[in-house]
Amino acid sequence: MSLPHHVRLVEVGPRDGLQNEAQPISVADKVRLVDDLTEAGLSYIEVGSFVSPKWVPQMAGSAEVFSAIGQRPGVTYAALAPNLRGFEDALAAGVKEVAVFAAATEAFSQRNINCSVSDSLKRFEPIMEAARSQGVQVRGYVSCVLGCPYEGAVRAEQVAPVAKALHDMGCYEVSLGDTIGTGTAGDTRRLFEVVAQQVPRAQLAGHFHDTYGQALANVYASLLEGIQVFDSSVAGLGGCPYAKGATGNIATEDVLYLLQGLGIETGIDLDRLIAAGQRISQVLGRANGSRVARARSAQ
Amino acid sequence: MSLPHHVRLVEVGPRDGLQNEAQPISVADKVRLVDDLTEAGLSYIEVGSFVSPKWVPQMAGSAEVFSAIGQRPGVTYAALAPNLRGFEDALAAGVKEVAVFAAATEAFSQRNINCSVSDSLKRFEPIMEAARSQGVQVRGYVSCVLGCPYEGAVRAEQVAPVAKALHDMGCYEVSLGDTIGTGTAGDTRRLFEVVAQQVPRAQLAGHFHDTYGQALANVYASLLEGIQVFDSSVAGLGGCPYAKGATGNIATEDVLYLLQGLGIETGIDLDRLIAAGQRISQVLGRANGSRVARARSAQ
Repeated sequence: MSLPHHVRLVEVGPRDGLQNEAQPISVADKVRLVDDLTEAGLSYIEVGSFVSPKWVPQMAGSAEVFSAIGQRPGVTYAALAPNLRGFEDALAAGVKEVAVFAAATEAFSQRNINCSVSDSLKRFEPIMEAARSQGVQVRGYVSCVLGCPYEGAVRAEQVAPVAKALHDMGCYEVSLGDTIGTGTAGDTRRLFEVVAQQVPRAQLAGHFHDTYGQALANVYASLLEGIQVFDSSVAGLGGCPYAKGATGNIATEDVLYLLQGLGIETGIDLDRLIAAGQRISQVLGRANGSRVARARSAQ
Repeated sequence: MSLPHHVRLVEVGPRDGLQNEAQPISVADKVRLVDDLTEAGLSYIEVGSFVSPKWVPQMAGSAEVFSAIGQRPGVTYAALAPNLRGFEDALAAGVKEVAVFAAATEAFSQRNINCSVSDSLKRFEPIMEAARSQGVQVRGYVSCVLGCPYEGAVRAEQVAPVAKALHDMGCYEVSLGDTIGTGTAGDTRRLFEVVAQQVPRAQLAGHFHDTYGQALANVYASLLEGIQVFDSSVAGLGGCPYAKGATGNIATEDVLYLLQGLGIETGIDLDRLIAAGQRISQVLGRANGSRVARARSAQ
């Protein structure tokens, strides 16, 4: 068993997390959350999304959030930019790194973004070109990598070409997302074994949802496959364990606790991270979705 | 990576689980729970405990439960018997298998059972002798194997002699319990590597609590160490995720889901198991502690 010495956690709470919370929060509270996460030592924070507020009202005000946060040198503050319009808005807001995402299955792509997988990839081409000319890095997401709400189980062989396409068009890293959380540790290992034949392991990340309680076991399985980057959400934002049909983002605190136990460096302070998660949970009036945070606060 | 083909789950919900729930339940509801678990295909069910109801009121009526449950041939119905008096009561109730438990740390042993670890082991000798003469099998538990609420982190070298002592005195299997749930996957692997030098892996079991969200990752780590028996609790009984200081038993449904994903046989029907957990959760008026059960019921 050979585990990585260092892991980078990509904090998706302010974007993927808050986007999936029922209750919208103010720009000031979002800024405070991002600043708290910076203080906790996160090196990568997905801050917001440049999409129409008509579709995603929780992400309104992302430009204001970007202009108000304290940006620490060496920390990446990224935004989702699903189309060229979004990319240009992000650029205008001073964003230096954007993310795009595609689905591994046709059914999810059609229902989620109303086009085929290959059409969605084509739509990214102008973004990639603009990003290259502007010196903006682009990270790619693939969703439904282990299961799809419409197609059921998803084979790794179906994921690999989508990951390869994003990598080939210039994404420096491709995050593989188990969107519905149905995957288990064996599936996870096989996924990375197969996709790594197309995209180097050092350019792959894991994004697991805890809907079926499997996320942390899948992180451990990924570490054993040499994966060194994981997406997670402070306080499990977006995955309230109390709500039906919650998306189930894995809590950053719980991943960090595992990594610390394995002696893996992240540069993150667990106590400050827990405090950040407690604060945003109180703002949202919801229970903290991190078990580590709950266990610590019960002491 | 070589995983076992078959795993035995030891269902501890009716005993370890209900004992740690705030609300006591009736004998009839306990009987129904055990019968539901038998129907779901569990091959080992820890039904109750023969202790003074003064100390553990939730376990009152264990003898009545044993006489009322439907016992399927090939299924083990076990009881905790912390002393000779309890063993004799268990025997009188027709129990064929009992469990005893010791702690890995002196501080926990003193505060929990008011004697040293070695004294607690000595107290089991008359039980072991009586069990041998009566043809009763004895399973041993060691608690606090990865952490102790009073002593902090626990080294595997401290656990091994306790496990060996239980094995040497005749326990056919020794279950290693992370009572406070602080252990992570690396600790778990090292624990089994060290203890397996004293007790064969085939006679060791893992008992993980999800207090810090690590339990399922620890189960996966144990499988990679060749461990084939795990304790778990239907609906996460005893580990309500909503309560402060919950003990955090891992939910049988969530372990089973992992095992099914890995292609490992257990003989258990997930749908029936979920139904059993939903029913007892309703009786207790609490949320189901299994994420798999919650995800399935949200569909």
